[in-house]
Amino acid sequence: MKTKRFFLPESEIPAAWYNIVADMKNKPLPMLHPGTKQALHPEDLYPIFAQELCHQELNQTDRFIEIPEEVRELYKNYRSTPLVRAYGLEKALDTPAHIYFKNESVSPVGSHKLNSALAQAYYCKKEGITNITTETGAGQWGAALSYAAKAFGLELAVYMVKVSYEQKPYRRSIMQTFGALVIPSPSMSTKAGRKILTDHPNYQGSLGTAISEAIELAMQTPNCKYTLGSVLNHVMLHQTVIGLEAEKQMAMAGEYPDVVVACFGGGSNFSGISFPFLRHKLSGEKNTRFVAAEPASCPKLTRGVFGYDFGDEAGYTPLLPMFTLGHNFSPAHIHAGGLRYHGAGTIVSQLFKDNLMEAVGIKQLDSFRAGILFSQTEGIIPAPESCHAIAATIQEALKAKEEGTRKTILFNLSGHGLIDMTAFDAYLSGDLYNYELSDEVIKENVRQLELK
Amino acid sequence: MKTKRFFLPESEIPAAWYNIVADMKNKPLPMLHPGTKQALHPEDLYPIFAQELCHQELNQTDRFIEIPEEVRELYKNYRSTPLVRAYGLEKALDTPAHIYFKNESVSPVGSHKLNSALAQAYYCKKEGITNITTETGAGQWGAALSYAAKAFGLELAVYMVKVSYEQKPYRRSIMQTFGALVIPSPSMSTKAGRKILTDHPNYQGSLGTAISEAIELAMQTPNCKYTLGSVLNHVMLHQTVIGLEAEKQMAMAGEYPDVVVACFGGGSNFSGISFPFLRHKLSGEKNTRFVAAEPASCPKLTRGVFGYDFGDEAGYTPLLPMFTLGHNFSPAHIHAGGLRYHGAGTIVSQLFKDNLMEAVGIKQLDSFRAGILFSQTEGIIPAPESCHAIAATIQEALKAKEEGTRKTILFNLSGHGLIDMTAFDAYLSGDLYNYELSDEVIKENVRQLELK
Repeated sequence: MKTKRFFLPESEIPAAWYNIVADMKNKPLPMLHPGTKQALHPEDLYPIFAQELCHQELNQTDRFIEIPEEVRELYKNYRSTPLVRAYGLEKALDTPAHIYFKNESVSPVGSHKLNSALAQAYYCKKEGITNITTETGAGQWGAALSYAAKAFGLELAVYMVKVSYEQKPYRRSIMQTFGALVIPSPSMSTKAGRKILTDHPNYQGSLGTAISEAIELAMQTPNCKYTLGSVLNHVMLHQTVIGLEAEKQMAMAGEYPDVVVACFGGGSNFSGISFPFLRHKLSGEKNTRFVAAEPASCPKLTRGVFGYDFGDEAGYTPLLPMFTLGHNFSPAHIHAGGLRYHGAGTIVSQLFKDNLMEAVGIKQLDSFRAGILFSQTEGIIPAPESCHAIAATIQEALKAKEEGTRKTILFNLSGHGLIDMTAFDAYLSGDLYNYELSDEVIKENVRQLELK
Repeated sequence: MKTKRFFLPESEIPAAWYNIVADMKNKPLPMLHPGTKQALHPEDLYPIFAQELCHQELNQTDRFIEIPEEVRELYKNYRSTPLVRAYGLEKALDTPAHIYFKNESVSPVGSHKLNSALAQAYYCKKEGITNITTETGAGQWGAALSYAAKAFGLELAVYMVKVSYEQKPYRRSIMQTFGALVIPSPSMSTKAGRKILTDHPNYQGSLGTAISEAIELAMQTPNCKYTLGSVLNHVMLHQTVIGLEAEKQMAMAGEYPDVVVACFGGGSNFSGISFPFLRHKLSGEKNTRFVAAEPASCPKLTRGVFGYDFGDEAGYTPLLPMFTLGHNFSPAHIHAGGLRYHGAGTIVSQLFKDNLMEAVGIKQLDSFRAGILFSQTEGIIPAPESCHAIAATIQEALKAKEEGTRKTILFNLSGHGLIDMTAFDAYLSGDLYNYELSDEVIKENVRQLELK
């Protein structure tokens, strides 16, 4: 019988995260202080994040950073996640390609987000912080952080993008079951929220707005820090545990990927699966392709511009050098809530600028069509976000078939869709749409960027 | 670092199921033909089930029955499931007991039900059957069979208990995503459904009624068989893959359980985890205790009577010798929909009669309290059904603490609760109740049983 799933023994779970910046020839441009426009130092971030995370954020020298024992102990609750050969999907596509996926959906909260949530909660606790805040889109990050906060005995307030709060009530309940306070955003509890509610009374929220609210609450609460589930360098760092495991597991399968695919919101799961493999491209050993699958309706990589922009709606964050649609960009209400973000993290942005990776825009209907084929062939209902990675994988597999080439594709199944069944319901009922985005809207939004 | 999760390599996934009946000194009494009252032969069941399943149902001689290659191939999508040491829960309870759980919730459909669904779909396909029907309570079985039917290319119609259809719309969507037809029961599509709707217009359904409807549809559809997710001997047989794995995994952990706990509806997950360990009690080698945790509001084992009764509401099934509350018993609308069944499978009933196992009634509020503690300490939100097993496990662990004895407890986490968040929502909002069941109601319901 052929082996279908590959696991690592607990002793083989990585003991360190991989910091790709140390290996990059062109480092990301510096983040800038929004007031002084000077390059940021770790100390500038202390008011917002736990100090250790501030140092990880700007660390450009250490290739590997040790995973604390306490975090590894909790990783063992679900890691290693399986690397799976998708025989069922291959057969349905009748492709010569070998398709593998790293199944992060087996995490107890259903997605890869826990990898960074546990790390961030740990460092906050270690530094004596008692309260943390965050935002969440689809609720994957919020659910992960809710459990992580409980595991380390921290109080947590989550601003959840209003459209997701309504579309995904189960995720709200999950956060509450873990003991978190959940607030739909925009809310009346912050200046940023009140402002946008005044300007746009029916605004359904965005990650950018929710971030503003979460930062504001953290700044105004004693002994409280803010945490973020994507975009930032330290989040990418923590997520590399995915790719480091996958590398060992691909070796167990006797293969090496020709293409690595992941969906793309701010970059956390893409970076997690890609960076460890990318290090062999940076070193010149391998020529793997890396494909970020973003929603066609929120196309920061495929149609955005590179420049300095804020990470949030209200402009509370440092200025980040990134591919962006502009921090006031309001994405369509697609069900892949975790991909509704205007910018790409600074590391990914630099890699994309240097042509070390590619991006593809996936339409909403194509994403769900792909997700349903995957469900029916592999038995796992993917998160709407992950459906984008599957759609891009299918494109690659069909191309391989057309060209008659044997190709090994690895994608990251960032999460399952069991909490997103309203989205599949809507798709099956014919109630979902593709959203067209005009060049004018994009131009209008990026016109105001600080620098190019 | 201590090992937290134990896996088996794919080569160690059991190659045969364990048929406990072959080892029982007192075999279960025969099932009776409802018309002739004669002991049933496999051929009598041919109109309802795939023939191979009919033979498995009445097999009293073969201790082990080979798992077909095609089924093992699909088992590999999620098996072995991890055996997990619940360090977090132990710590919260401050108990000297060692608590382990077998995590069947990692199955792609979220519960142990897939173990039998794949087997039943396989045998149907092999015998040239094109259409199958079933019923589902909470939707766990229906979701599992929907995927299994798709995997083997069968059409499936699922009657879903109406109260669950409304409480758990996501499970309905999951079944539809896998391509199944889902009908709330009681429905107008069958004689049995129409009768009960006429007699009780607002009837919210029960497993018994849904079974009647599914059998009726199967009998009236060409090339169609009925399938069942619990109660019957062949279902228990397929589920023994759980305990067979757990036995090897407990050995990896260097332990053997003093107590094995599982929640109890019709008996499928209880049998699955218990029977392989029970064989060492039947042989006199071990003196393990086995505890079935049933809802206090549906107490077939703790307060029911032993006698011949129908497996369904309308009386379409053979007469089964079992502990029962009477086939017209209408259980309270607790959220553990999978436990709302009036009877216990015939094997379990015989074992219980022979004092080879125990049962305990768990109140709804106690089950959710236990489930939330488990969520917050282990990170996994359990199904409302599984919450009953956790509550019973906690009772055992606290008893061990009181007595100051070191005890090894193993329970089966039959499924996760991510699709049952409305139930947790209701619990957290204080909207859930315990249901008291009077002796008179029980007496009234069992008065009509065929034999005692």
